Amino acid sequence: MSGNTFGQIFRLTTFGESHGVGLGGVVDGCPPGIPLDESIIQSELDRRRPGQGGLASTTRNEPDQVKILSGVFEGKTTGTPIGFFVENTNQRSHDYSKIKDVFRPGHADFTYNAKYGFRDYRGGGRSSGRETVSRVAGGAIAQELLRLEGISIYAYTVEFGGIKAEVKDIEGAQDRSYFSPDPDIVETWDERVIKVRDDEDTLGGVVEVRATGLPAGLGEPVFGKFDARIAAAFMSVGAVKGVEIGSGMGAARSLGSENNDPIGPDGFLSNNAGGILGGISSGQDVVARAYVKPIASILQEQQTITATGEPTFIMVGGRHDISAIPRINPVLKAMMALTIADLLLLDRRLGVRD
Amino acid sequence: MSGNTFGQIFRLTTFGESHGVGLGGVVDGCPPGIPLDESIIQSELDRRRPGQGGLASTTRNEPDQVKILSGVFEGKTTGTPIGFFVENTNQRSHDYSKIKDVFRPGHADFTYNAKYGFRDYRGGGRSSGRETVSRVAGGAIAQELLRLEGISIYAYTVEFGGIKAEVKDIEGAQDRSYFSPDPDIVETWDERVIKVRDDEDTLGGVVEVRATGLPAGLGEPVFGKFDARIAAAFMSVGAVKGVEIGSGMGAARSLGSENNDPIGPDGFLSNNAGGILGGISSGQDVVARAYVKPIASILQEQQTITATGEPTFIMVGGRHDISAIPRINPVLKAMMALTIADLLLLDRRLGVRD
Amino acid sequence: MSGNTFGQIFRLTTFGESHGVGLGGVVDGCPPGIPLDESIIQSELDRRRPGQGGLASTTRNEPDQVKILSGVFEGKTTGTPIGFFVENTNQRSHDYSKIKDVFRPGHADFTYNAKYGFRDYRGGGRSSGRETVSRVAGGAIAQELLRLEGISIYAYTVEFGGIKAEVKDIEGAQDRSYFSPDPDIVETWDERVIKVRDDEDTLGGVVEVRATGLPAGLGEPVFGKFDARIAAAFMSVGAVKGVEIGSGMGAARSLGSENNDPIGPDGFLSNNAGGILGGISSGQDVVARAYVKPIASILQEQQTITATGEPTFIMVGGRHDISAIPRINPVLKAMMALTIADLLLLDRRLGVRD
Amino acid sequence: MSGNTFGQIFRLTTFGESHGVGLGGVVDGCPPGIPLDESIIQSELDRRRPGQGGLASTTRNEPDQVKILSGVFEGKTTGTPIGFFVENTNQRSHDYSKIKDVFRPGHADFTYNAKYGFRDYRGGGRSSGRETVSRVAGGAIAQELLRLEGISIYAYTVEFGGIKAEVKDIEGAQDRSYFSPDPDIVETWDERVIKVRDDEDTLGGVVEVRATGLPAGLGEPVFGKFDARIAAAFMSVGAVKGVEIGSGMGAARSLGSENNDPIGPDGFLSNNAGGILGGISSGQDVVARAYVKPIASILQEQQTITATGEPTFIMVGGRHDISAIPRINPVLKAMMALTIADLLLLDRRLGVRD
Repeated sequence: MSGNTFGQIFRLTTFGESHGVGLGGVVDGCPPGIPLDESIIQSELDRRRPGQGGLASTTRNEPDQVKILSGVFEGKTTGTPIGFFVENTNQRSHDYSKIKDVFRPGHADFTYNAKYGFRDYRGGGRSSGRETVSRVAGGAIAQELLRLEGISIYAYTVEFGGIKAEVKDIEGAQDRSYFSPDPDIVETWDERVIKVRDDEDTLGGVVEVRATGLPAGLGEPVFGKFDARIAAAFMSVGAVKGVEIGSGMGAARSLGSENNDPIGPDGFLSNNAGGILGGISSGQDVVARAYVKPIASILQEQQTITATGEPTFIMVGGRHDISAIPRINPVLKAMMALTIADLLLLDRRLGVRD
Repeated sequence: MSGNTFGQIFRLTTFGESHGVGLGGVVDGCPPGIPLDESIIQSELDRRRPGQGGLASTTRNEPDQVKILSGVFEGKTTGTPIGFFVENTNQRSHDYSKIKDVFRPGHADFTYNAKYGFRDYRGGGRSSGRETVSRVAGGAIAQELLRLEGISIYAYTVEFGGIKAEVKDIEGAQDRSYFSPDPDIVETWDERVIKVRDDEDTLGGVVEVRATGLPAGLGEPVFGKFDARIAAAFMSVGAVKGVEIGSGMGAARSLGSENNDPIGPDGFLSNNAGGILGGISSGQDVVARAYVKPIASILQEQQTITATGEPTFIMVGGRHDISAIPRINPVLKAMMALTIADLLLLDRRLGVRD
Repeated sequence: MSGNTFGQIFRLTTFGESHGVGLGGVVDGCPPGIPLDESIIQSELDRRRPGQGGLASTTRNEPDQVKILSGVFEGKTTGTPIGFFVENTNQRSHDYSKIKDVFRPGHADFTYNAKYGFRDYRGGGRSSGRETVSRVAGGAIAQELLRLEGISIYAYTVEFGGIKAEVKDIEGAQDRSYFSPDPDIVETWDERVIKVRDDEDTLGGVVEVRATGLPAGLGEPVFGKFDARIAAAFMSVGAVKGVEIGSGMGAARSLGSENNDPIGPDGFLSNNAGGILGGISSGQDVVARAYVKPIASILQEQQTITATGEPTFIMVGGRHDISAIPRINPVLKAMMALTIADLLLLDRRLGVRD
Repeated sequence: MSGNTFGQIFRLTTFGESHGVGLGGVVDGCPPGIPLDESIIQSELDRRRPGQGGLASTTRNEPDQVKILSGVFEGKTTGTPIGFFVENTNQRSHDYSKIKDVFRPGHADFTYNAKYGFRDYRGGGRSSGRETVSRVAGGAIAQELLRLEGISIYAYTVEFGGIKAEVKDIEGAQDRSYFSPDPDIVETWDERVIKVRDDEDTLGGVVEVRATGLPAGLGEPVFGKFDARIAAAFMSVGAVKGVEIGSGMGAARSLGSENNDPIGPDGFLSNNAGGILGGISSGQDVVARAYVKPIASILQEQQTITATGEPTFIMVGGRHDISAIPRINPVLKAMMALTIADLLLLDRRLGVRD
């Protein structure tokens, strides 16, 4: 596919640029009869807004009001495609001359130019983080489907700026600064942010996503493995540079006797597999982590070249987040929801579960 | 898709079980006029055979002779689907009663049962590592296409049993034990194997795959990002539990000022991005790593349950590799080749490069 | 796929209901640099409006103003998805109680209920002819791409209400009543309409679509044949019950010696094949015809049942067209354009033509 | 897709050339637990062999023995891909010099050359009618799935050489010459064959395919309509130049009052719709017809050109069928079965039926 559609049966197609008319999408393949209205999608969109970001996010105000354009009738999905749109209301007219013909290090300016011959240089166009608005909206619809199946998804920050958090409380994390699962780490992280902001630099971190209530049997063998689908889903989010499932990287350094999960009469006795064996869900929680690079836009001079290859220096101005965390959390949650919704419907063809 | 097809334009569909008639596949979408014969595919298949495994692999003899069934005429591809098949010649009649009704920890026995209601229990059937024979054969065809485009792919072991290797010589690694890029580490790794074998345990490791000679511009935006495709490709290989691109996990702990790659008149001054920006190739080497868990089959008693839920202990017998490394190296190389071939052809539609 | 996406590389995904907020779509995979603005799409949309319908269409006013939501920057496509939307401005509040719980003969009421359990009964929802607004808009974008390749597409009515037209002038047909290729038949067709309207009945007809300027080599072998793609494209349009290519039905009654197209030094000497041999374009005009059933909504009492299975009679009121012709012409033209755009880009992967 | 895969969930991928090693395919997405062995596939393959062809087919002996390569264990499908292969045993060494560099009128020689730059000229390679062996084998597997759902499919010849048959007995037609539904027409058709053979010419005809026992609700709206899928399936078969559903072409010449199917308490009172309304099955029989052109290979001199464009005459020698009928009947039956199997599984996602 041409890159802007995710999923095979429960499918999200997205469009829109950061500084164009707005961002939208189409969810095709959603079963009929699922309760849905704009407020449900809106509540997920609000999660990716600044404010919950503790000190790490700008306080720029982005209302991001979603409008459902089709596929819902009398408060329920009809089984036809659900179109939605979020208008861009916040483009201050802006001077782009500085970045119009210069490639910002760490950004996609260079590669978009290489691929398409030219680019919408206003705020990164399609490569902007704002593209994730459509993912979160689509993911919110997927989560309504999953809710009916008793499946819940949590995203929380397990490491920020090199400082790990303990996973103490994932329910509470959903409304805590940085989506932190550890109330006691928030202040330390705040201090880290203040220090880095003074240094005019940016931070990365690690987000863990957990799905609970899954049936065993989801995922397709070989190329369509559940974990392969998660890896693609997470790595498709800008700034994510690594993905691991269960014990992940640690598994590579452990012994088979340590990493295998023994099975007792009441189920598995550990979950190094992250809830997936042979690419298929085991019924345990599915646990995956995304490694997020620091924001590329820093308030420092950086060496680069112009579109014509002239050496130059650029100082990317404007108000920017210190980190993609925590605003990336609801995005990763959405990607997990979209992945599971698709595998769930795909699995029904086997007529085993229904 | 139903899980056994990889790629959108350059497509590999595979079939076959470890203890069935054999393993095969169909490559559809390969351009015409590419020189191809069985010896080219065979040489890649031979790479995944024991022997090159240093001490880590069994010396079980698997000829794995490939036969091309279609799509090649007078020594060149015709543009029609290329069917191939590798007969299973090595199934010693075997007593499966021990695993028939018992779930082996770390294996897909439990989940395949959950999904399909029953399974081909002979040596894991479709979830066996032997499934990768079809991937390597298909990847060999992809590599012929890439060769004509000046693209080369290398896979080498950068960490084994917790012991890192220095990347000194990746050309030589292709014919060195463990596909090691460091001649001086081989002996240490051998000693590790001997120790672990005595302990009746197994090892994991980390494989790096590098693609050179890529044009800038490959990869699709948003969901079809080059790195997302690599993540899916690698994570679809059994035993892989983590994937990273470029500085990967490290990026999550670095500062923006450290992680950005400055651009000089002669190109990028570093490659933390791993050759991919915004999901699109920059023209630098594409560098990705797969984290491989230890082999699940260990010569120790493990707690588990029977198909009917009765608690029991199992001791998985038979001759098994100590590690999926190094035999997984040509498999990961093949997955990278298949990914690039597909993106390369997909990109041509833009008519920019041609 | 879930049914609302057309094409593999040049892809149109549509959404919207006849009496919802509006109708829209997303074109993904369109190459960058193609001149595009709303007026180009609007001019195609205007073709499916009443007025050009001679007497066969209602004079109901549907402005159908299209708005481009993304993918165009400084007057050219960027290579990113092109979102568009057409608001429904014309839903008079309407009494649907009569059709809410009754299945209209010839309509999809019964089958939508069977599939989805319930339906958006307002004017047919997704099964309404208004769905084609999105097709025409998407097709207009495809036609811009084809124009740059020197490919033109014409749709014209070759038979209406059982009365055939001679194909005298297909250029002029584009602006003639009924898109008639024969100026001398228009009056006869008008008389047919008046008679049938007096009888409170409706009419069908046959539309021919011709593509000129095609390169030889388009179309994929076996399942992806050019003619198979056209057949799916045309038959996916409501009211189309038959499709033929070239000599079509006539071929089934001819002899091989009559139906084969001899080849002379300057090319084929006839075109019974309709420009397609073995599923691949020959470079001749591609010629296909769609057979269109009469409009199902008639001003007569018809026997049917209620949603609960009670026998009843229904008299479908409201102002309705006498025939899907000629408003279906630009829709079929759009479907041909979308089909060719997709095959054209798909073919580039072979790197033969570029 | 690259053209050699059919279906989205129940997917058939085929490969092989008429004069290569053989023909095969992979069925991916077939549910587990369906009884299957080689004899079931073989019995369908035997239907497309000469003999049943009355006088219209050659008596050339083609054993076409199928071998299942994977996906079946202990007599049942496992849910993993089903690979199969049919060896070509019948290539008499043959002199191709006459057709190697000359384009046969009515054949795909010219277009394959245009697309791929060169071709496997031996007997048409991939464009040969022998390609349908893989379709029939795949369709046989689909029919096993449908049988469990109570769905049956019949293909029978309703017109041959311009002479219509009455549809008297479709059960008997399956074992009657020409798959004729009318015992009394066989002799007339035999006479037509003798006459045409004397004239060294060939014939076409019309095949009707009927599916019974379908649930209401199959088919996707808009682009994925049931009838659109049938049209693509049938038109993808070589020699088919037209497809119609239900009253088809006739609908275009009828009035709405004639063509609508009234609904009574016990169901529809007629079936002009051919069992499909709005692209979705109504529960009535699905009825479609394929219009088949005469065989292109005739024993007469025909004007053509060489690969270098020189004018010449060709006389295609060898033993050839007089008509694609009746050997095309089991192929069309297979395509209908593959289409329904895919829609049936696709529909399950809605969780309405299961």
